[in-house]
Amino acid sequence: MPLIAIIPGDGIGPEVMAQARRVLEYYRSERNFPLDLWDLDLGAERFLRDGTTLPKEVADRIRNEASAVLLGALGDPRVPSNEHARDILFGLRFGFDLYANMRPVKALADRLVPLKNRTAKDVNMMVFRENTEGIYVNVGGQFKKGTPDEIAINEDVNTRKGVERLIRAGFEYAKAHGKKTVHMADKSNAMKHAHELWYRCFFEVAKEYPGIAAKHLYVDALCLFMVQDPTPFEVIVTNNLFGDIVTDLGAALQGGLGMAASANVHYADPKRLAMFEPVHGSAPPLVGKDLANPLASFMTVGMMLAHLGWKEEEARIERICAEAIETGNCTPDVGGTKGTKAVSDWFVDRLKG
Amino acid sequence: MPLIAIIPGDGIGPEVMAQARRVLEYYRSERNFPLDLWDLDLGAERFLRDGTTLPKEVADRIRNEASAVLLGALGDPRVPSNEHARDILFGLRFGFDLYANMRPVKALADRLVPLKNRTAKDVNMMVFRENTEGIYVNVGGQFKKGTPDEIAINEDVNTRKGVERLIRAGFEYAKAHGKKTVHMADKSNAMKHAHELWYRCFFEVAKEYPGIAAKHLYVDALCLFMVQDPTPFEVIVTNNLFGDIVTDLGAALQGGLGMAASANVHYADPKRLAMFEPVHGSAPPLVGKDLANPLASFMTVGMMLAHLGWKEEEARIERICAEAIETGNCTPDVGGTKGTKAVSDWFVDRLKG
Ligand SMILES: CC(C)[C@H](C(=O)O)[C@@H](O)C(=O)O
Ligand SMILES: CC(C)[C@H](C(=O)O)[C@@H](O)C(=O)O
Repeated sequence: MPLIAIIPGDGIGPEVMAQARRVLEYYRSERNFPLDLWDLDLGAERFLRDGTTLPKEVADRIRNEASAVLLGALGDPRVPSNEHARDILFGLRFGFDLYANMRPVKALADRLVPLKNRTAKDVNMMVFRENTEGIYVNVGGQFKKGTPDEIAINEDVNTRKGVERLIRAGFEYAKAHGKKTVHMADKSNAMKHAHELWYRCFFEVAKEYPGIAAKHLYVDALCLFMVQDPTPFEVIVTNNLFGDIVTDLGAALQGGLGMAASANVHYADPKRLAMFEPVHGSAPPLVGKDLANPLASFMTVGMMLAHLGWKEEEARIERICAEAIETGNCTPDVGGTKGTKAVSDWFVDRLKG
Repeated sequence: MPLIAIIPGDGIGPEVMAQARRVLEYYRSERNFPLDLWDLDLGAERFLRDGTTLPKEVADRIRNEASAVLLGALGDPRVPSNEHARDILFGLRFGFDLYANMRPVKALADRLVPLKNRTAKDVNMMVFRENTEGIYVNVGGQFKKGTPDEIAINEDVNTRKGVERLIRAGFEYAKAHGKKTVHMADKSNAMKHAHELWYRCFFEVAKEYPGIAAKHLYVDALCLFMVQDPTPFEVIVTNNLFGDIVTDLGAALQGGLGMAASANVHYADPKRLAMFEPVHGSAPPLVGKDLANPLASFMTVGMMLAHLGWKEEEARIERICAEAIETGNCTPDVGGTKGTKAVSDWFVDRLKG
């Protein structure tokens, strides 16, 4: 029986996770999906109480017993520089080698698209963000700190193994889903070492997929084109930092962070533990106001169910999310007037019906 | 008499520079501005002919005699990885210590703004991009190249001096232009060393400008907000790489790269040599078709004239560019039907009239 570890986290994290949990409860009790839920007390509250972030015993138990982790959001203004958030988030992404951060940039309704003369069908791409290296390794240092001569360095570390497996995941996904093009974004015209590897590796891997067009873009051009005309983009592969930037920009095209879901997976082995999180953060200003949009967390549950083998449920959840937008059964960030809880009530009813 | 070194460069570079030159000729011959023009034969053609990029004697003469450099665009598919372009572009930016790359993101007409429910007045910000360090120093290397164990690294190198002077330029500009807010974008939640310096330095410098609000953003959030609602942004300060990304995204909000001008300056000393370039590239597919939009190069000339002391001309050139858009005297990329040359004919006539 698949065990799902749930980390509600901080801010609106627990608010949306409470609703995502109701969706999971529906599948468990009304559809008899064999699912075990394991609630983990990790996040800012816990860290402020006793300094715990992601203890080794917990990580080990997740590794040995869980099939998936569902994460709400992390980040709390009371924790200086949010060290707990990084420990937990990167502990999961790096610690479980979840090298592909899959972030669908898909608009569910025309009115969510902020661009003139574009409709929902124009915004439909899957971004594969490298999730275990790049600038996120946080290798570097500060020298002569606090003096006029201070130097501060971070290294963008890329390995053939890391770059290749992420690029390959993008092509495999394209092949499996009938996509015609994979775009790769780098800044190889400025970063001659790190991104020359991306450039070279991209076209090498592409040779193994003769039916799929491989197109290279500089990241600055990609951001421009995503706004000018997002229609050509089907699958995008890129490094950790650019994936972060491009998917937040992508969220704007989808109607905001309240609509953006993500899966962190070890793509080559679908049986391995994976981690699922809505792209949004803990959003302190929204806390306690029943304003958080739960749809991103529902679609994140959809991605998780697909990963666990129930692929039709992902499509079904997405369809009901689109209906929520169309019928106004949604929160104010996406043009509705309902609260978090009322949207979820409606959503679970629709799931049942 | 100010000497202007002109480097037309590659692709559409020479096409737009020929038109920018006509504007300069108008100021020289009809308005009697004391301007000397010096045409430099540098770019892909020259590099392919004899391997020359930016020779030391030329750089020295520019340094000793010129008041400004006007650059068209660099980049040619015939030059592997465009080494000539980097040599020349970074030779000018780094070599003359032009640490502030000022890129106005300003929409001149409502119809150029690609966002629903936004008008030209909503898009009006000045981006200060650090221009002499960051990931562009290209420090790093490749190890075990071509093997499965390859590692490729680029370092993001930031100095207190470099970060502080760029941030200070942003606040000085805000003060001089009555702007109320300066935003700084970094990724200090992931790059704990390099961007912690940016974060710390930003709020330290901000203390010296008590009348101006200092606001910090992560770069991913900035890209999202620029699309969701660009109105709060007046002045943005950021590092070299993020400045590159944000200003291409910004160009999309202005109506495309054909509308984006830039100045590369040593901000603290306005008497020093500066370099001016439209943000667009050499655009090989447009070459020879009379399709290149010359307006970005005209506004770039405007920034140059302001730098040389003729501030009113910058505003005048911008006004006529806005009129070109309003009256359809513009190229197809901005909704017109005219060619490069016809737009320039109209433009120079309007300058005269
Ligand atoms: C919180 C932050 C470190 C994180 C990231 O940059 O990965 C977030 O922006 C995300 O996209 O998940
Ligand atoms: C050509 C490239 C190296 C350059 C840069 O990244 O600076 C360009 O994109 C720019 O913005 O001027």
